[in-house]
Amino acid sequence: MTLGRAFPYGKLIFFATGNMHKFNEARRVLAEYNISVAMVRVKTIEIQDDDIESIAEASAIDAARKINLPVIVEDAGLFIDALNGFPGPYSSYVYRKIGLDGILKLLEGIENRRARFKSVVAFSDTDGSVKYFRGFVEGRITRVARGYGGFGFDPIFEPDEQPGKTFGEMTIEEKNKISHRARALREFAKWYRDQFSP
Amino acid sequence: MTLGRAFPYGKLIFFATGNMHKFNEARRVLAEYNISVAMVRVKTIEIQDDDIESIAEASAIDAARKINLPVIVEDAGLFIDALNGFPGPYSSYVYRKIGLDGILKLLEGIENRRARFKSVVAFSDTDGSVKYFRGFVEGRITRVARGYGGFGFDPIFEPDEQPGKTFGEMTIEEKNKISHRARALREFAKWYRDQFSP
Repeated sequence: MTLGRAFPYGKLIFFATGNMHKFNEARRVLAEYNISVAMVRVKTIEIQDDDIESIAEASAIDAARKINLPVIVEDAGLFIDALNGFPGPYSSYVYRKIGLDGILKLLEGIENRRARFKSVVAFSDTDGSVKYFRGFVEGRITRVARGYGGFGFDPIFEPDEQPGKTFGEMTIEEKNKISHRARALREFAKWYRDQFSP
Repeated sequence: MTLGRAFPYGKLIFFATGNMHKFNEARRVLAEYNISVAMVRVKTIEIQDDDIESIAEASAIDAARKINLPVIVEDAGLFIDALNGFPGPYSSYVYRKIGLDGILKLLEGIENRRARFKSVVAFSDTDGSVKYFRGFVEGRITRVARGYGGFGFDPIFEPDEQPGKTFGEMTIEEKNKISHRARALREFAKWYRDQFSP
């Protein structure tokens, strides 16, 4: 890491994403740590890999190189046990193509509904160094979609920590208490805040 | 293109792939044009994109850079109309995760079985220049899997040009007459052969 106390941007971080939902979730979480976040719409490379860490790493390095600023990217996926981890790193593509109904159909007649959301926040400095922060949340896939909050597969995911309610039925504040993304962002925030400590 | 008549490797091409099925199909097709093919197991970058041309391009450039030889890569996908083109560029991942049964389940109760396989062969020279060659084959998704030939989704794909038989029920020779991959490879082979013509 080259930033440390000499880092010139104050408690500001750039978040390379085109997803307003992700940005809004991140903004609120990082505000708890007095970190401001600026959305940067830069198209970064997204590699194919079964592992979201590798995807986030390549993307963060590419983003930092393109905008020449320290930056975070976030990559997440829904991993369903009965489907061998599908849709995993390709959750966004799978959501666009077959949607909630596709996942529910694949799980028809299957008792094991266990699933987890994973998130990786990758921070890249302009020297190409990268640091990861992970978060996850355990839960189950519902039988029907419920709620219009969140995005993606939120309406079919019921976290163990708040049974009876899907992510789609929660406000951003409720979701941010337990979500994979909020957890990864908090890990990042604690580390990032410490870069500025006396 | 920098190769032209001065190209030093004779009628030989390097094929970057880890898939023996693809290599065996390619070897036979290219032999029709007196082109020898050498399999190169090099891990190349594979980007996420809805478009297989972009995936193949990035992969070919990366492969040529890594092995410092003119090289082809091939990327293919099965595009199912009723599923908005799913699994498309992620066919290999989707096959590993939900298999033939997953696709058949997603299509349960759906009359429209129309689908096509697309292939892109991307040739990259060591100077980073790239040329594409495309092939496709129209067909339908069967109600049950049939045959053990080919690989991936072959046992559930019945091409229009040979109705009643899935790719999985064909020999390599039969499949190579009409397959998306063989067609893309033939386009490549014609062009490549001409690079050596007097």
